[in-house]
Amino acid sequence: MSADSKLVCVQDFEDYARSILPKNALDYYQSGSGEEYGLKLNRDAFRWLRIRPRILRDVSQRDLSVTVLGSKVGMPIGVAPTAMQRMAHADGECANARAAGAEGAIFTLSTLSTSSIEEVAAAAPDTVKWFQLYIYKDRKVTMDLVQRAEKAGFKAIVLTVDAPVFGIRLADLRNKFVLPSHLRLANFDGHLSTNVNDTTSGSSINDYVANLFDQSVTWEDVKWLKRSTNLPIVLKGILTEEDAKIAADLGVQGIQVSNHGARQIDGTLAPMEALPAVARAVGGRCEVFLDGGVRQGGDVFKALAGGARAVFAGRPLLWGLAAAGEAGARQVLRILRRELDHTLALAGCTKISDIRPCMIGYGSPLQKL
Amino acid sequence: MSADSKLVCVQDFEDYARSILPKNALDYYQSGSGEEYGLKLNRDAFRWLRIRPRILRDVSQRDLSVTVLGSKVGMPIGVAPTAMQRMAHADGECANARAAGAEGAIFTLSTLSTSSIEEVAAAAPDTVKWFQLYIYKDRKVTMDLVQRAEKAGFKAIVLTVDAPVFGIRLADLRNKFVLPSHLRLANFDGHLSTNVNDTTSGSSINDYVANLFDQSVTWEDVKWLKRSTNLPIVLKGILTEEDAKIAADLGVQGIQVSNHGARQIDGTLAPMEALPAVARAVGGRCEVFLDGGVRQGGDVFKALAGGARAVFAGRPLLWGLAAAGEAGARQVLRILRRELDHTLALAGCTKISDIRPCMIGYGSPLQKL
Amino acid sequence: MSADSKLVCVQDFEDYARSILPKNALDYYQSGSGEEYGLKLNRDAFRWLRIRPRILRDVSQRDLSVTVLGSKVGMPIGVAPTAMQRMAHADGECANARAAGAEGAIFTLSTLSTSSIEEVAAAAPDTVKWFQLYIYKDRKVTMDLVQRAEKAGFKAIVLTVDAPVFGIRLADLRNKFVLPSHLRLANFDGHLSTNVNDTTSGSSINDYVANLFDQSVTWEDVKWLKRSTNLPIVLKGILTEEDAKIAADLGVQGIQVSNHGARQIDGTLAPMEALPAVARAVGGRCEVFLDGGVRQGGDVFKALAGGARAVFAGRPLLWGLAAAGEAGARQVLRILRRELDHTLALAGCTKISDIRPCMIGYGSPLQKL
Amino acid sequence: MSADSKLVCVQDFEDYARSILPKNALDYYQSGSGEEYGLKLNRDAFRWLRIRPRILRDVSQRDLSVTVLGSKVGMPIGVAPTAMQRMAHADGECANARAAGAEGAIFTLSTLSTSSIEEVAAAAPDTVKWFQLYIYKDRKVTMDLVQRAEKAGFKAIVLTVDAPVFGIRLADLRNKFVLPSHLRLANFDGHLSTNVNDTTSGSSINDYVANLFDQSVTWEDVKWLKRSTNLPIVLKGILTEEDAKIAADLGVQGIQVSNHGARQIDGTLAPMEALPAVARAVGGRCEVFLDGGVRQGGDVFKALAGGARAVFAGRPLLWGLAAAGEAGARQVLRILRRELDHTLALAGCTKISDIRPCMIGYGSPLQKL
Ligand SMILES: Cc1cc2nc3c(=O)[nH]c(=O)nc-3n(C[C@H](O)[C@H](O)[C@H](O)COP(=O)(O)O)c2cc1C
Ligand SMILES: Cc1cc2nc3c(=O)[nH]c(=O)nc-3n(C[C@H](O)[C@H](O)[C@H](O)COP(=O)(O)O)c2cc1C
Ligand SMILES: Cc1cc2nc3c(=O)[nH]c(=O)nc-3n(C[C@H](O)[C@H](O)[C@H](O)COP(=O)(O)O)c2cc1C
Ligand SMILES: Cc1cc2nc3c(=O)[nH]c(=O)nc-3n(C[C@H](O)[C@H](O)[C@H](O)COP(=O)(O)O)c2cc1C
Repeated sequence: MSADSKLVCVQDFEDYARSILPKNALDYYQSGSGEEYGLKLNRDAFRWLRIRPRILRDVSQRDLSVTVLGSKVGMPIGVAPTAMQRMAHADGECANARAAGAEGAIFTLSTLSTSSIEEVAAAAPDTVKWFQLYIYKDRKVTMDLVQRAEKAGFKAIVLTVDAPVFGIRLADLRNKFVLPSHLRLANFDGHLSTNVNDTTSGSSINDYVANLFDQSVTWEDVKWLKRSTNLPIVLKGILTEEDAKIAADLGVQGIQVSNHGARQIDGTLAPMEALPAVARAVGGRCEVFLDGGVRQGGDVFKALAGGARAVFAGRPLLWGLAAAGEAGARQVLRILRRELDHTLALAGCTKISDIRPCMIGYGSPLQKL
Repeated sequence: MSADSKLVCVQDFEDYARSILPKNALDYYQSGSGEEYGLKLNRDAFRWLRIRPRILRDVSQRDLSVTVLGSKVGMPIGVAPTAMQRMAHADGECANARAAGAEGAIFTLSTLSTSSIEEVAAAAPDTVKWFQLYIYKDRKVTMDLVQRAEKAGFKAIVLTVDAPVFGIRLADLRNKFVLPSHLRLANFDGHLSTNVNDTTSGSSINDYVANLFDQSVTWEDVKWLKRSTNLPIVLKGILTEEDAKIAADLGVQGIQVSNHGARQIDGTLAPMEALPAVARAVGGRCEVFLDGGVRQGGDVFKALAGGARAVFAGRPLLWGLAAAGEAGARQVLRILRRELDHTLALAGCTKISDIRPCMIGYGSPLQKL
Repeated sequence: MSADSKLVCVQDFEDYARSILPKNALDYYQSGSGEEYGLKLNRDAFRWLRIRPRILRDVSQRDLSVTVLGSKVGMPIGVAPTAMQRMAHADGECANARAAGAEGAIFTLSTLSTSSIEEVAAAAPDTVKWFQLYIYKDRKVTMDLVQRAEKAGFKAIVLTVDAPVFGIRLADLRNKFVLPSHLRLANFDGHLSTNVNDTTSGSSINDYVANLFDQSVTWEDVKWLKRSTNLPIVLKGILTEEDAKIAADLGVQGIQVSNHGARQIDGTLAPMEALPAVARAVGGRCEVFLDGGVRQGGDVFKALAGGARAVFAGRPLLWGLAAAGEAGARQVLRILRRELDHTLALAGCTKISDIRPCMIGYGSPLQKL
Repeated sequence: MSADSKLVCVQDFEDYARSILPKNALDYYQSGSGEEYGLKLNRDAFRWLRIRPRILRDVSQRDLSVTVLGSKVGMPIGVAPTAMQRMAHADGECANARAAGAEGAIFTLSTLSTSSIEEVAAAAPDTVKWFQLYIYKDRKVTMDLVQRAEKAGFKAIVLTVDAPVFGIRLADLRNKFVLPSHLRLANFDGHLSTNVNDTTSGSSINDYVANLFDQSVTWEDVKWLKRSTNLPIVLKGILTEEDAKIAADLGVQGIQVSNHGARQIDGTLAPMEALPAVARAVGGRCEVFLDGGVRQGGDVFKALAGGARAVFAGRPLLWGLAAAGEAGARQVLRILRRELDHTLALAGCTKISDIRPCMIGYGSPLQKL
């Protein structure tokens, strides 16, 4: 297929990807945990918000660029880290990283990627790249990842803090999900790289996490990480103002409001629900990001109005990749960019900083009748 | 078909039109932007309101007439401007304008009409006609339209302020929407009139707007327009009390609360949601209108109770036109009129000014239990 | 069919009736006005309420009887007036009236009945019967009805105040609804009795109402009616506390909170939504009743807790009648009675006056978390 | 089938059980009363709550054990009493009781069991067992049950207080539900044990209850029961803070917030809705439990955060039993345990007492925008 012919929105890419991906991979990509009520909520939270557009402003010149953790990027939309992207397309993370760079988006590489830190760096040297880190019981393994990311020119460490264990994703249990045997976790050697190629119990990835990730990680480890790298640190997976305050007090550079795409607890706050309180709690002491459920440019606008400096999309880029590799991923980003650009113009904004909290409202103002 | 046989409500006309219109036209007419959540909201907002009917009033004599911007009309329901009506029926805007006149409704002609200002004026000399204006980069083109409308006896200029760019309507992108080649934008000559007959990218109308409309229009241009014409000016597309106040301060004669039929941003306030606050902000300094989602006489009642002096329907008239040309359009207006008349009687009102804010309530009063 | 075999709830009777009634009659019976959103709301309003049951009370002896406008009846559930019941079953109103008496329910006879006042009185001499009155332009016709009802031993006049015109019921328009030619409006002679047997426009019954009912009725006519009869007067169709206050001030004996089964305005308050405010406004000065959407014993409980002294069911009795004449109507009443009885026991009540406002709550108390 | 192959969540077990159980039994097990709106509400109430997870806590060592009424058990999830379990599987209550013990759950045996107190005690000597009591008109029968439970080593008497009569479950009426003739109510002899094997009216179990249970039970009987046994007493079926206070004042050891699986009144509070107010009213004076709608580990978490010391599941264990007897029941409990364990870890808790009220919120915090 030619990625930009008939697929005109993210949902189209999802539908198309559903029609071509093998079940094992599709289910892994699409699943939320449990009965997936949270997955639905991640989307709904955006729908409950109304944009309040302002009119009659000169919007002929628009600029979507933002500076995120010191890097200037073309738009406030980035690629969230998702594991094992080569299941979607042979070019996997490399294609996605190239696409991000080409479209002015930040790319976040997962620890559990099927292309290595170095491969991605070589494939997409000019892309602003962040490295998503899981802390392994073996701290040497962990530190090794950080140092390789530093060396490869990654611009931030995104420490995922919502995954001491992995959520229960029913389809993966049913499928006895494994990484296809021709792929491996490319950042590792030996069993760390192949342990997800088979499973005795239910989902290989849940076993992997349970065996190798450190469930005892605390705020002390964040301090340790801060001491160990000069890269800015983003904590990914905060949903409460309580934790946001601790993070800001501790001096991290970024907080990514996220529920891991509703793949961990089924029934948490949706990120868009949690964002405004987190942003208020942080009060500008660090940058705040959001991921989860972003599917339209209008969602981006709402999150920015809710206090995010940038948002990240996970599954949409997997669908783009599945549909047409790098071209598909680019097209997905272009769609989101165009939609955001239109929303900006139609809301009376010309630059990202024009988007203000008063430009969204929750539910119907008729409630005040 | 005979328009008044089996089609007894607006929805019937919509269903019938869906069954006969070519996809290219149908999709253009029916689409909202994005995932069309806003389109659903436009309707739902009416449903959330409850009419509080008063009883035992003499309602034997009822009068639906109102004075709108100085013109006396038979009912507080008008025809919203919709582009390219000849796709629905060969008689297009002329039929619609005649129908409006015959039923006592105001007719608004779109800039992007397939019948010219002069054709419509000739076809429907006695109809109260308003001209909807888009501001072209070329101010001469713009002013020419205004002057022709004045000369042709139009009674107001409706300046659409929610369309510096056009919203992203997915079906049009998929269809690569074009105006059929036997039709043209009748208010223009040359490329201004035929540019929508083909497209290289996605939707011809979006290209047209992007190329020719002025995205730099501001409140200064409203002042310019005020200076340039003696016709009253209505700003169409205001959704916030903030903008409503500016408009009233500036001395426009009318504000049309509208989200362009949910065709611009997907996820704004529904007009019915925005109306009460706008009406309160304006405080009677200018007339307030509403369009978007009006499908039943009860909707009209709710909007009038919410502060509108008149409401306008867009798509319903396209469905009427498609079903049976002028006769169909008349039948749609007659249905809305009869439903409004019944609602009036059943709510204890005999004239439009009897409809008061206390006659509607939001949601369930049980919430106060 | 044998009415008490497989039909174990009101919904079963409705489903069965749908399967056997001719379309013309079925549609007339089931329709609400407009898009029937109000019809849905009438039911939903009950669902939004939660019963708060009290436990460990001796509920071994239960008494459902109540005194309504001075008549002692076996249960606080009555039959609402519905027109033309012989379309459901040859025995029509007579069967329904007998069933009501047998089950301890009040029966209300419609002005537009297909059995006359005298026929019903003869068929069901021991039933507590009320007569529902429409005021005809011809006051002699009106007064004649009242006097015949008095003479026939009816116990109250239920003046319907929500029907100066009839609501727009789309199916009736489509069907060009007429009363089948073998039936007539039995309380009248000549054209008053047969005018609904054919139609030139849409619905015969709407024409009938428009031609013959007096749309100029006001509170003065209520005074006139009070002066003209010694029977207690119930105003049926009040939905606001404002009108309830006027009615109570004026000294009527009863108020029936009703939206005419959602057949008039589509989009009013549901009766169950309106009831508590009406009951509070009346403050015991007259009796308050409710009809609309009552389908389960729990609904009756909720309405009584909301301030009603008794409730009335309309369509359920039509379904019962259609299924098996008098036996079917009795079975419907028995079902409602048994369900109410169980609800009483399970809520810790032994008599109707044990049901108190604090035994229901709106929505989820979690909202106060 | 092998119970732990493809069935990975409680819903899977339900779906499987639906496919294999005879209609008579399935309907008895699954039904709620009336239109089953309450049944839906029992689930929805959990969905309206959001878990607020805390991060970066050492969750490597987790302990799900709790002490419930003085007994230490492996997890705060128990088996609610459900009647006639041998319809699901030949091993019935014995299998379920063994499964509970094996998985560290409390087992509650119904008065209306198809395995006797003594059979269950013999089959599952090490399980923490509670006995659910209905009070028969014949107090000797009642006291006999209590004494046998004491003697058999049961650890508490769960007095069900929401069932003076049984709710109206439509499917049972339609099926004319009877206990299959090869089974009997095993705690009784003679007609007390076989009266549910046939029915003249509708549902045998409703007849049984109506004939034999004492509808005049009051708080005095609770005092009598307290005097008559040394076992702790749990009142099962309280939904209001008013009754919870009386119970706590009276000195019962436990309150089980329950609406009997929505099988009594259709339209009460859902247990999860009622719980927080009950827990607050009780203020720690006795232990508070919840049953109704628990289907996922996250539900357990929410109930514990809402104030429950433990929760009980009814139908899920019937589905487990139906699928694979004891092994199926164990698998259901294991699933719930694993899900709760994951929720704990992901919410930053290591033991049950870490779960605090501030870790859940109702609805969307956006409402405060
Ligand atoms: C298939 C998949 C794999 C993921 N892998 C990771 C991962 O390795 N590390 C991580 O921090 N988050 C991971 N996430 C979570 C994403 O970073 C992000 O939070 C989520 O996808 C955002 O929601 P969205 O998919 O609705 O955009 C994954 C999500 C998905 C869907
Ligand atoms: C097919 C179509 C074409 C439209 N064209 C115009 C237009 O040319 N100018 C304009 O101001 N509004 C235009 N609108 C918006 C309408 O004036 C109006 O705001 C909208 O249709 C009202 O919503 P309704 O269709 O639900 O009644 C158009 C709407 C539709 C559906
Ligand atoms: C078929 C039908 C005919 C009716 N006819 C009358 C009538 O003649 N007079 C009247 O006051 N109300 C009439 N009503 C309204 C009923 O009295 C009552 O308000 C309504 O049916 C209650 O709602 P329910 O059907 O949900 O119980 C009618 C309702 C129906 C459904
Ligand atoms: C089939 C069935 C039988 C039941 N039998 C009893 C019983 O004998 N005694 C009792 O106190 N509760 C009984 N209950 C209620 C349960 O104890 C419990 O309150 C309910 O099942 C909890 O809801 P859940 O099924 O959603 O988990 C029964 C419930 C069901 C579904």
